[in-house]
Amino acid sequence: MIKIVILGAGNVGTHLFRVFTEAKEVEVVQWYNRSLDHIQLHRDTLAVTDQLDALMEADVYLLALSDDAIPITAKELTPLKGIVAHTAGSVSMDVLKHHTDHGVFYPLQTFSKNRAVDFKSIPICIEANSDQNRKTLKKLAEAIGENIHPINSIQRMGLHTAAVFVNNFTNHLYQVGAQICEEQEVPFGLLRPIIAETAAKIESITPKEAQTGPALRNDKTTLQKHLDQLRDPVFKNLYLTLTESIQKNDEYSKL
Amino acid sequence: MIKIVILGAGNVGTHLFRVFTEAKEVEVVQWYNRSLDHIQLHRDTLAVTDQLDALMEADVYLLALSDDAIPITAKELTPLKGIVAHTAGSVSMDVLKHHTDHGVFYPLQTFSKNRAVDFKSIPICIEANSDQNRKTLKKLAEAIGENIHPINSIQRMGLHTAAVFVNNFTNHLYQVGAQICEEQEVPFGLLRPIIAETAAKIESITPKEAQTGPALRNDKTTLQKHLDQLRDPVFKNLYLTLTESIQKNDEYSKL
Repeated sequence: MIKIVILGAGNVGTHLFRVFTEAKEVEVVQWYNRSLDHIQLHRDTLAVTDQLDALMEADVYLLALSDDAIPITAKELTPLKGIVAHTAGSVSMDVLKHHTDHGVFYPLQTFSKNRAVDFKSIPICIEANSDQNRKTLKKLAEAIGENIHPINSIQRMGLHTAAVFVNNFTNHLYQVGAQICEEQEVPFGLLRPIIAETAAKIESITPKEAQTGPALRNDKTTLQKHLDQLRDPVFKNLYLTLTESIQKNDEYSKL
Repeated sequence: MIKIVILGAGNVGTHLFRVFTEAKEVEVVQWYNRSLDHIQLHRDTLAVTDQLDALMEADVYLLALSDDAIPITAKELTPLKGIVAHTAGSVSMDVLKHHTDHGVFYPLQTFSKNRAVDFKSIPICIEANSDQNRKTLKKLAEAIGENIHPINSIQRMGLHTAAVFVNNFTNHLYQVGAQICEEQEVPFGLLRPIIAETAAKIESITPKEAQTGPALRNDKTTLQKHLDQLRDPVFKNLYLTLTESIQKNDEYSKL
């Protein structure tokens, strides 16, 4: 049985609380949050606290906090016997190095308050300052997931950057699509099947193989029609930059 | 029974041939293509031709051709009794206006040679030069689909532009993600769950509600970390342009 304390009750903290509570090989002994508001309705099930100096003994302390809060909170922590690990994509493991045992437990997924996620398929990226600690974090990951990878801080930073492209930026392109639909008074729902198919395609072929469209073909007539249609200068610029990136990328790959 | 002739054997033409061949209320009487190579293995099932002046009688002639080929082919056609309709997103219906009966039959989806598509869910956008022709094209669409919309040429152009954002450009962002993974020597498969979830989210919430990330939060520390990581100047520029677009869009929406 691995005993853990979860620190933080944002999206990641809350999802980890839910999934670890249901995991057989894990006991969530305590939940810490800066404000008790978010966690006190669980006080019948486990210890809750808003005091960093009142943390209980555990094998792993999971810092599911904002990027800024991780180093600050890690410094405020009194020395602990367990592994202190954070869950962030873009924070180096080094910010925890004053703790004898430390590591990273990074689930690579986008978490929303009201959407259930299936942890079984989520990649969990593990890093630790010793083989023993890596083993413990791996065991913790195996209690909830089936897609576990040893990833160092530099690789994780890369993955986080890549995730911004395929999640934040992609979602923004959906929003551009939604705004064009609104302007043309057609329902956004018309774009849902092509959005789903675009994502589904790369399950079986690479994005490079899946690339199509006027930018790749350098179909100047269509490119100009699209630019004429876009009134917003920010979207026009976005269109040009993405077109250029597709074309440059294609040139490189032919060299 | 609606009799149709399909012109073109590219991705769209081939998928339309397959689905209409299986539709009970439709008879594909002939398939035309510039080259017989792609279609002659079907000559036992239906008439095939590479001669535009040898088209058979039909209710609808579907020009599933490239954007450039549509006006050229339409002009070469001798006067026909049926409706001449093209299947393109970014070509105005007007290029067919010298045909007494004309229209547009635009399935809004991304078609690949080797991927089956479910026409039932694909939005089919219909336009025609008369109520009677609109009715016929609608009936033709209903024979294969359940998601049919009357869409004029200007709206369709908007939809096509939006589709470029949510399909071509989104797929390019997947490719950027894949290249970052390659540089960091981590498998691209680690990004697949977040790609799937990003697309799945907007089935239940709007893209605006789903937007998260350092650009929206204006989290300068993380933005800088990502920029430091991106070596390719084209990707750096793409990152900055997308970040700016997210932030400008958010400002507008607060005005």
